[in-house]
Amino acid sequence: MRKLEVAFRPFDKVTRVPEGTTLFNAAHWIGLPIESTCGGRGTCGKCKVQVLAGEAEIAPADRRWFSEAELAEGWRLACEATIYADAECFVPALMRVPKAATMGLSRFVLLEPNVHKIHLVLPEPTLEDVRSDIERLREALDAEGYGLLTDLRALRHLPIALRSARWDVTAVLCGEHLVAVEAGDTTAVAYGVAVDVGTTTVVATLMDLTTGAAAAVASNLNGQAPFGADVISRIARTRMEETAAAELQRTVVETIDGLLAEVYAAAGVSSANVYEMVVAGNMTMLHLLLGVDAHAISVAPFIPAFREPLDLPAAALGVDIHPEGRIQILPSLGAYVGADIVAGIQATGLTREPELRLFVDVGTNGEIVLGNADRVLASAAPAGPTFEGGHVKHGMRAADGAIEGVVLDGAEVRLQVIGDVAPIGICGSGLIDAAAQLRLAELLDATGRLARREDVPDHPLAEHLIEQEGVRAFALTETIALTQRDIRELQSAKGAIATGIASLMELMGVTGDDLEQVLLAGSFGTYIDPQSARLLGLVPPVPVEKIVAAGNAAGEGAKMALLSFREREMAFGLSRRVEYVELSGRPGFNEAFLTAVGFPALEDVT
Amino acid sequence: MRKLEVAFRPFDKVTRVPEGTTLFNAAHWIGLPIESTCGGRGTCGKCKVQVLAGEAEIAPADRRWFSEAELAEGWRLACEATIYADAECFVPALMRVPKAATMGLSRFVLLEPNVHKIHLVLPEPTLEDVRSDIERLREALDAEGYGLLTDLRALRHLPIALRSARWDVTAVLCGEHLVAVEAGDTTAVAYGVAVDVGTTTVVATLMDLTTGAAAAVASNLNGQAPFGADVISRIARTRMEETAAAELQRTVVETIDGLLAEVYAAAGVSSANVYEMVVAGNMTMLHLLLGVDAHAISVAPFIPAFREPLDLPAAALGVDIHPEGRIQILPSLGAYVGADIVAGIQATGLTREPELRLFVDVGTNGEIVLGNADRVLASAAPAGPTFEGGHVKHGMRAADGAIEGVVLDGAEVRLQVIGDVAPIGICGSGLIDAAAQLRLAELLDATGRLARREDVPDHPLAEHLIEQEGVRAFALTETIALTQRDIRELQSAKGAIATGIASLMELMGVTGDDLEQVLLAGSFGTYIDPQSARLLGLVPPVPVEKIVAAGNAAGEGAKMALLSFREREMAFGLSRRVEYVELSGRPGFNEAFLTAVGFPALEDVT
Repeated sequence: MRKLEVAFRPFDKVTRVPEGTTLFNAAHWIGLPIESTCGGRGTCGKCKVQVLAGEAEIAPADRRWFSEAELAEGWRLACEATIYADAECFVPALMRVPKAATMGLSRFVLLEPNVHKIHLVLPEPTLEDVRSDIERLREALDAEGYGLLTDLRALRHLPIALRSARWDVTAVLCGEHLVAVEAGDTTAVAYGVAVDVGTTTVVATLMDLTTGAAAAVASNLNGQAPFGADVISRIARTRMEETAAAELQRTVVETIDGLLAEVYAAAGVSSANVYEMVVAGNMTMLHLLLGVDAHAISVAPFIPAFREPLDLPAAALGVDIHPEGRIQILPSLGAYVGADIVAGIQATGLTREPELRLFVDVGTNGEIVLGNADRVLASAAPAGPTFEGGHVKHGMRAADGAIEGVVLDGAEVRLQVIGDVAPIGICGSGLIDAAAQLRLAELLDATGRLARREDVPDHPLAEHLIEQEGVRAFALTETIALTQRDIRELQSAKGAIATGIASLMELMGVTGDDLEQVLLAGSFGTYIDPQSARLLGLVPPVPVEKIVAAGNAAGEGAKMALLSFREREMAFGLSRRVEYVELSGRPGFNEAFLTAVGFPALEDVT
Repeated sequence: MRKLEVAFRPFDKVTRVPEGTTLFNAAHWIGLPIESTCGGRGTCGKCKVQVLAGEAEIAPADRRWFSEAELAEGWRLACEATIYADAECFVPALMRVPKAATMGLSRFVLLEPNVHKIHLVLPEPTLEDVRSDIERLREALDAEGYGLLTDLRALRHLPIALRSARWDVTAVLCGEHLVAVEAGDTTAVAYGVAVDVGTTTVVATLMDLTTGAAAAVASNLNGQAPFGADVISRIARTRMEETAAAELQRTVVETIDGLLAEVYAAAGVSSANVYEMVVAGNMTMLHLLLGVDAHAISVAPFIPAFREPLDLPAAALGVDIHPEGRIQILPSLGAYVGADIVAGIQATGLTREPELRLFVDVGTNGEIVLGNADRVLASAAPAGPTFEGGHVKHGMRAADGAIEGVVLDGAEVRLQVIGDVAPIGICGSGLIDAAAQLRLAELLDATGRLARREDVPDHPLAEHLIEQEGVRAFALTETIALTQRDIRELQSAKGAIATGIASLMELMGVTGDDLEQVLLAGSFGTYIDPQSARLLGLVPPVPVEKIVAAGNAAGEGAKMALLSFREREMAFGLSRRVEYVELSGRPGFNEAFLTAVGFPALEDVT
């Protein structure tokens, strides 16, 4: 698709965007704030720009805001001006500079939430002014630049709310949905909550929408865990038991409600002042949360019921925010590249920069995104449970007692253990460290075979080479060992991800040298030692300083979407910009996988 | 507002429409069918026309359907082409001539329901085609010209519906809402129901949307009756008892569900095949049905919570149509000119013809509409309960035993009684007849004073002139008499309506001579003798043949809206076209009323 060049005056900022982009979005693309209160819906009339060069068709909304003379001079609403050719336009000085917050990977986010509170003193009805309550409210909001949909539930409360407040009210809008009509001026109080529904852990962050600051954060295990540790086993339960789908839904809603109670108590905030919830999560978690049948996600060809963003009333899920509040489910890209990854991409700004970056969320399912502002590919690699400690003899989750780091230094085995306790097992990052250190110590060859003690009798760590039930192993402690089978599992898991990365890089026609950055996301990714990941070939052989932990990118992305409708709309646009690659359908995938299970030659990665 | 002239070729049809009308609506204005399946939403691309003269801006949707060359030749989607100057356009031959039905007052209605059933054989998903279920469906519908919104409730059923039908399905859309996905081709079966919720009576008509024919009709008393006979007393109950509003809502929903059960049984139709309900009713009935606080309707300045059309999920009311079906509430014009009157106007076509017509719905509240295609005024006159038999000594509703017609012929008093029974009282039409006949018999003067027997001893009906409890009266039977007080009540009631009519005619600057037709609507209006109405001055003194009973115009309008989304959209547009006049706010109203309580001079109306 040809890119068009758009120049903004007087800033002398130029951006290149796809055909069909609006001037409003093109400006946002380069972080140029254009005034708007309606969020680009053509209703507030604040995003006026003058088109100096290029096509500029007149949209119906333009007629409302401009005279014939102004239209002739090229004045248009930026949000309605879709461009099909190079363009140049003049942006008037901002009348109100929005607040901003730094979020995600040092992203500068303009504070423009989808939740709007507007204080209004409405004229009382008279026999000469018999507009209906909703029209009176709509016209007052319209004058302030806000659109208003009519929702039956809000309508039911409206007559009493307006009259008991003697027409001095604050209207609370989520987008164009009327959430509440509060008595007096309550614009100083507005909250929203960002929720990242992980298969294992659910995180809720209460955000103060007036400042952009996090008011409280809480996390807990997903209450669905007893139904199965991974997405496949949970979906399987919905097929085996008729009531399981409803129970899974109820359980995760309970988990969310528990977290909400926690953050409300911590921040001293009432649910009545929490107007919006933004939800990120993988596709299965979203299906189960919404009560949508998820079976087709679990079997080839792996089809979700939906991928698009969903804007739902809070009542649809019954979560404890304002009863008329809204829930925004972020969009997904594919059955195994969900809204958590979309949020992560948004948090990193990967699709906005010219530099090529690789984003990997390592877990049971490894999600891989490769790209820059020009092109973005995404895929998922079925890594299996190894990185979560599954199928590993002494494997465990990253909890107290888990070995999360390993250093082999001469004859010494130094372990980093979570919590102030004795080690009881090894978690994913420990496994990766251990294998990487064994490679460096030359006790593990490139095919993944562990040395036997008799082969390296003089090695300072020779004593640690043991045999357990006829299988080679490396003893980390008296009781905890890494077996040859564990290493094979690790090879298989990392091979899946490495193959996915290699496939996307091949498709994109790039090599490791082209990569500006490798981002390791997710709670697991954050703890992987970059050098170990590189040593094992989990990520391409880039300089180790280019491998960066991205933290809980999904949660950051959800928070950004909560604070900024522009960020949200860019996230919505990702499904059109990101090419989803189904790996299992690609020719040569199996062969590539068989290559990728091996480890890189040491000279290539040290 | 200046009218624009639009000429359609090759038909040589010309229409005059307001600025800002689309070519699509302009065509419909003169009954010219333009192909469309999406209902003018710009999504089906079927309403192609070529603009031969006049402005024709390119809308974003046009780019999807036309090449640059076609755009240059003036090809546009009629539904997107808004006109701001006189225009001329070419309409291609219809590819599919829609069926039509004759409805309302001989209106010819094109059968184009808002419910669409589309048979689709979808490609099965593969690893190369991993679109989500909703995208697969949306894209198939899109290819057929239909838009699709994503609704969570429909989404929940979608994966199983598609797979159990092996991808051979019929999608059922209400507008762009997905109501159902049925296995196989079920396009031959589609029903909707039109409901007129009257204060006294509720009528439901089951319509076959494939033929336009009524499949069954049923009516019953509104179950809210025990809460009060009129709207004011029902609203009062909601103020006195906290639970009354919920009970009133439940009761009317039960009445509707009872009627639905009746029509389904009569027609052998399952509620699963009834996809849409269109509801007409007065503002109070709509508020109570929807559970919206109605108090402000009942006190000056008489403010409803809403007037606009509402498109609701069936679940919002819990009525027994398809559980994912939709409810269309027709729009209202003011607190006392409700959706029943909007439906009635639509049924009569009053706003489309050049001839000036007066539409009056006589009841507790008299609704008055005066106008033609150029201008329309509407108002409501508080007639009180007299026409329903209230405040009348022997008054009763129009039920068995009610005197509904009276003829005074010489010495004879001939009574028309409802049902094959002895008279037990007198209803509204009987009251009007009796008074009119007394005027003709010269026993009632223009001020409304009944003659005394001693004043007219030789009158053949002198014996009927009696005195009851010190009040003059006219004996209709041994036990049933019309008293002087009854006549005063009647004068007051008819005076209210006559004043309303006179006010609108004065505002419009017209006299009775300008009226082409006087339509008497509502169950009561249908039974009024036109000559009697004229004799009493209830309606202007037009030739009696111009006074026409319009029947249940509200029900007809609701049926038309069910059968034709174009009729529906025109009904939606009425709130912009009709000027609502609040009578009690008008100067000189009280004086006009005092004049109107008198009867016209006999020489002016005979």
